[in-house]
Amino acid sequence: MKFNNRNVFISPKATIGKNVRIGDNSVIYDNVVLEDNVTICNDCVIGEPLSNYYTDDSYENPPTFIGKNAMIRSHTIIYANSTFGEGFSTGHRVTIRENSTFGKFCRIGTVSDIQGFVEFGDYCWLHSNVHIGQQSKIGNYVFIYPYVVFTNDPHPPSMICKGPTIGDFSQVAVGTVILPSVNIGKHCLIGAQSLVGKDAEDYQLVAGNPAKLIKDVRELKSKETGNSHYPWPYHFERGMPWENIGFDKWKIENGYEND
Amino acid sequence: MKFNNRNVFISPKATIGKNVRIGDNSVIYDNVVLEDNVTICNDCVIGEPLSNYYTDDSYENPPTFIGKNAMIRSHTIIYANSTFGEGFSTGHRVTIRENSTFGKFCRIGTVSDIQGFVEFGDYCWLHSNVHIGQQSKIGNYVFIYPYVVFTNDPHPPSMICKGPTIGDFSQVAVGTVILPSVNIGKHCLIGAQSLVGKDAEDYQLVAGNPAKLIKDVRELKSKETGNSHYPWPYHFERGMPWENIGFDKWKIENGYEND
Amino acid sequence: MKFNNRNVFISPKATIGKNVRIGDNSVIYDNVVLEDNVTICNDCVIGEPLSNYYTDDSYENPPTFIGKNAMIRSHTIIYANSTFGEGFSTGHRVTIRENSTFGKFCRIGTVSDIQGFVEFGDYCWLHSNVHIGQQSKIGNYVFIYPYVVFTNDPHPPSMICKGPTIGDFSQVAVGTVILPSVNIGKHCLIGAQSLVGKDAEDYQLVAGNPAKLIKDVRELKSKETGNSHYPWPYHFERGMPWENIGFDKWKIENGYEND
Repeated sequence: MKFNNRNVFISPKATIGKNVRIGDNSVIYDNVVLEDNVTICNDCVIGEPLSNYYTDDSYENPPTFIGKNAMIRSHTIIYANSTFGEGFSTGHRVTIRENSTFGKFCRIGTVSDIQGFVEFGDYCWLHSNVHIGQQSKIGNYVFIYPYVVFTNDPHPPSMICKGPTIGDFSQVAVGTVILPSVNIGKHCLIGAQSLVGKDAEDYQLVAGNPAKLIKDVRELKSKETGNSHYPWPYHFERGMPWENIGFDKWKIENGYEND
Repeated sequence: MKFNNRNVFISPKATIGKNVRIGDNSVIYDNVVLEDNVTICNDCVIGEPLSNYYTDDSYENPPTFIGKNAMIRSHTIIYANSTFGEGFSTGHRVTIRENSTFGKFCRIGTVSDIQGFVEFGDYCWLHSNVHIGQQSKIGNYVFIYPYVVFTNDPHPPSMICKGPTIGDFSQVAVGTVILPSVNIGKHCLIGAQSLVGKDAEDYQLVAGNPAKLIKDVRELKSKETGNSHYPWPYHFERGMPWENIGFDKWKIENGYEND
Repeated sequence: MKFNNRNVFISPKATIGKNVRIGDNSVIYDNVVLEDNVTICNDCVIGEPLSNYYTDDSYENPPTFIGKNAMIRSHTIIYANSTFGEGFSTGHRVTIRENSTFGKFCRIGTVSDIQGFVEFGDYCWLHSNVHIGQQSKIGNYVFIYPYVVFTNDPHPPSMICKGPTIGDFSQVAVGTVILPSVNIGKHCLIGAQSLVGKDAEDYQLVAGNPAKLIKDVRELKSKETGNSHYPWPYHFERGMPWENIGFDKWKIENGYEND
């Protein structure tokens, strides 16, 4: 019932894999590649042309690549000239501007707004309504929670554009603003509703407005169990590549043994 | 002009009451019930199937019930398996996930995102861009203002999911984050841009980052009148069931005399 | 390819200028005027009827005016009874309620929500996900960054509606809440993640939760250059009317010599 090809437009210059499903009212522009088993739900735009499309008669749409098994939920708009690895998924009404690179198995929540010119590793999970400014660089296994904003202009308005950098396994809690060019290390936890203007070293918990170092995340105990919860990969594995084998074994197999 | 049945899809398994209007490009899925006088504006999805719809050939859509006189504004997405009482209304681009229960005369503002598995009483008004995490439980006559977020994971990421609880008549001001499993009493006022990690007793004003008890709301004077504004139902009645009869009379008639 | 008139509805009572382009699935309601060279992208609603449209059989749609060269990106909803000057543009999924006035060359970012009954001068740039409450009044050359909220009810809920006022050239940084009836002067800078409850004089930098006066913006040095960055029009001219001639010359020519 959902994929009944009502009011769908697929460019003859798009490349559509096997078992791809495209929902009603969706548009697939020129030079989009959808690999096998991709699902595009209703009312999506994939490969939205860049702004000179509207003014330049010789405009040619740059390529957009969506890896196998991706699930793009309804009302999502993805601009041209980006690449999304295997297993990519979005919630509803996500906007992703041009020149964005996402690794494997990334997820982006409803209404999130990726401003383009960004780089994400593998298994990054963005919850609802996250805003990532241009020139942000995010590692692997990074989780970003609702209403977090990554900024890039230290003296607004200026011509400077320097986004934050976030290391592998770090967590940015709800409602936090990361200021331009801040470097967050690996395995950090950034507390809710923080304003982060200084760099954080590996394993630091920083929080507050303005954000300060609170403690080492490994000293933080779970209220429920009384035990350490961080590094979190020892206690959370749903959907992660160490599911069923454990983080220690996975680290050895994947070159993370020194982390 | 608006309800001209262009590009509308209504499942033959949906139940449509009298005088129901459905806007262009909208989709009504299987097992949706729209009671009399419901208005669904353009580009809506009602009864969005759950995720196993995409993978399970024997999927059957669970029921979705929208009570009489509801007004669902354009671009709203409502998942299956939820119930909405009489007089429910939404702004534009609202997303409501599965297993949500709303009482009578609730309103949800533009772009708000209800993550599902939540329970709302009657006459709850959510303004624009409110985010309600799973397992939240909200009483009656609760108002939630823009960019408020209700969270549920105390140690992200974990498998724990414990949302906040909010008592009748409480108000949560703009930009505030309520942390997991926090209990807010009745007639509370939570100040703007707060980070609320502790419970609040009935009639408390709490505010700040981190939020602290400021005073009893009954001690708070209106800048305009110099008089107490709280409990607010004595001073605000538009759209409330005590409109024209006053809060005291209504309380007696409705079993709230001890509040 | 984009403007191929699939599933477009244009009221016979709308007035469409020369070289206007209207995207797929878009609706242009009664009494909308689109001046020459306006571009409306896909899935937009222009001139959305006011709420009594749904209940009043004699409803007549008030006029909506969109000036020449405007660019309205996809999924934007603009209510009737508003006016937009030359060169107006929006990102995606913008919502603009009725009785809004925008001067020339204003820009509104993706997902922003303008609640109506507001007044903007010329060259105002709103970034993504800005929320402007009713009765706000914004000057010229004002920039507002993501997740900023302008509020208007000092004692929620009440029948009072008094929005903030912002002077020319002021900047409101990311994640900030401006409380009701606050007056911000000219050339101010409001820091990120602030809660602003007090007025700010011209040239003040205010920041924090609650926001306090930090210093005169002219004392603020750029980390990159070591020089003053504010007043910013001396250092930023892209898209501004003083581009290529400089702010001093432009001020003299435009009656701003005393600012």
